[in-house]
Amino acid sequence: MTQPPEPPPADALLELREALRAFADERAWEPFHSPRNLATALTVEAGELLEHFQWLENAESAALPPDTLAAVRLEMADVLLYLVRLADRLGVDLAQAARDKMRLNAQRYPVATARGSRRKHDRL
Amino acid sequence: MTQPPEPPPADALLELREALRAFADERAWEPFHSPRNLATALTVEAGELLEHFQWLENAESAALPPDTLAAVRLEMADVLLYLVRLADRLGVDLAQAARDKMRLNAQRYPVATARGSRRKHDRL
Amino acid sequence: MTQPPEPPPADALLELREALRAFADERAWEPFHSPRNLATALTVEAGELLEHFQWLENAESAALPPDTLAAVRLEMADVLLYLVRLADRLGVDLAQAARDKMRLNAQRYPVATARGSRRKHDRL
Amino acid sequence: MTQPPEPPPADALLELREALRAFADERAWEPFHSPRNLATALTVEAGELLEHFQWLENAESAALPPDTLAAVRLEMADVLLYLVRLADRLGVDLAQAARDKMRLNAQRYPVATARGSRRKHDRL
Repeated sequence: MTQPPEPPPADALLELREALRAFADERAWEPFHSPRNLATALTVEAGELLEHFQWLENAESAALPPDTLAAVRLEMADVLLYLVRLADRLGVDLAQAARDKMRLNAQRYPVATARGSRRKHDRL
Repeated sequence: MTQPPEPPPADALLELREALRAFADERAWEPFHSPRNLATALTVEAGELLEHFQWLENAESAALPPDTLAAVRLEMADVLLYLVRLADRLGVDLAQAARDKMRLNAQRYPVATARGSRRKHDRL
Repeated sequence: MTQPPEPPPADALLELREALRAFADERAWEPFHSPRNLATALTVEAGELLEHFQWLENAESAALPPDTLAAVRLEMADVLLYLVRLADRLGVDLAQAARDKMRLNAQRYPVATARGSRRKHDRL
Repeated sequence: MTQPPEPPPADALLELREALRAFADERAWEPFHSPRNLATALTVEAGELLEHFQWLENAESAALPPDTLAAVRLEMADVLLYLVRLADRLGVDLAQAARDKMRLNAQRYPVATARGSRRKHDRL
């Protein structure tokens, strides 16, 4: 009697982590997935994402043509996939890291001084 | 009679999306959060993440000293936060985009040919 | 009687600056060549350069196959071209900036403490 | 009888190449200067350059405050220094590569079709 397959986790980041592990494992890609390689691949994908915006005014970038948006969407997916994989390899809980960083940002950018400003926290 | 606050979403990406919206809204940062600006900020953060790895051998990068790992963790958080924010501004469902990209990757990198290989799909 | 054409400047950076100005001018690209756009394009090209190295060990990267080297060479050219163009738009003397930075690096990385070390100057 | 020191090369790229060789040699940095490491460092510096522009409108970026311009100038220097060093390690003649790429760009972007357009060559 076989077990029914487990349902996917309710949390997308956990679901992707498991899916990426299986994907890499089936392809014997573990040796290539050093944290350095993954951080490099993530940066390369960020550049590919940015390429779509490089000649646009800010206002234009909020109204992308459908084919550009479709391409941008997949580049964003690439960034997320490498980020989730990197987190897995480093043993980092990505959601908790983001929550911690948001708490730090709330301290660095108090509403009273940061409101309407583009300044970096060390210049507020 | 006031409503009790809603519990946070079970999914971390949705939780972060809501938290980032509130954060930007309180600070009147919406005008700065054009998709182009956010894609640029994401790339800058990717570079800051990569900086920690730039002189390391692959093997070394799998055993980071604790202070480096702590810094890397927060850089990863920055990448995620800008990615979630960008997705929100573009109306992209990040989790679904990642699932779609994984399906595409499964087609591009069949186990039979991709196993143990670092080649890009157009060279397999 | 026509004038003979002026010889190209002896200095490659000046030669490229003049050639890029003429190239952009003929194509009416000046409006797109804001410093921000050029810095973005430069970063995108850096990512394309890096892509060729993303799965390589350091040792492998010193012995690139000829077709990879040919591609890498042109990506390096792209980085240089955008850098020269950006410098022109900002009124920066690139060679002098590099000399100034080398002088700063000599102070930050004295031979006695930096020898054989990968540490950043603020950790020496 | 000692020889007088050789004058620096008239060409800035050659001058910098020699200066960087000596700098790395004195510090025994050759083992760290693999092409992959240098390409990574170049990308990290490009990100630091881009950071100064990340919240600016295109028009603003053409009129940087003096302290920003001074910082931008040194980030540009960093990009150039790593590029020159990478070229040296790969045996690439950077000036000739740039000339070759400009010739290719002239073919890809004929004045007649590229004038006033931001389209990439494969979409002209």
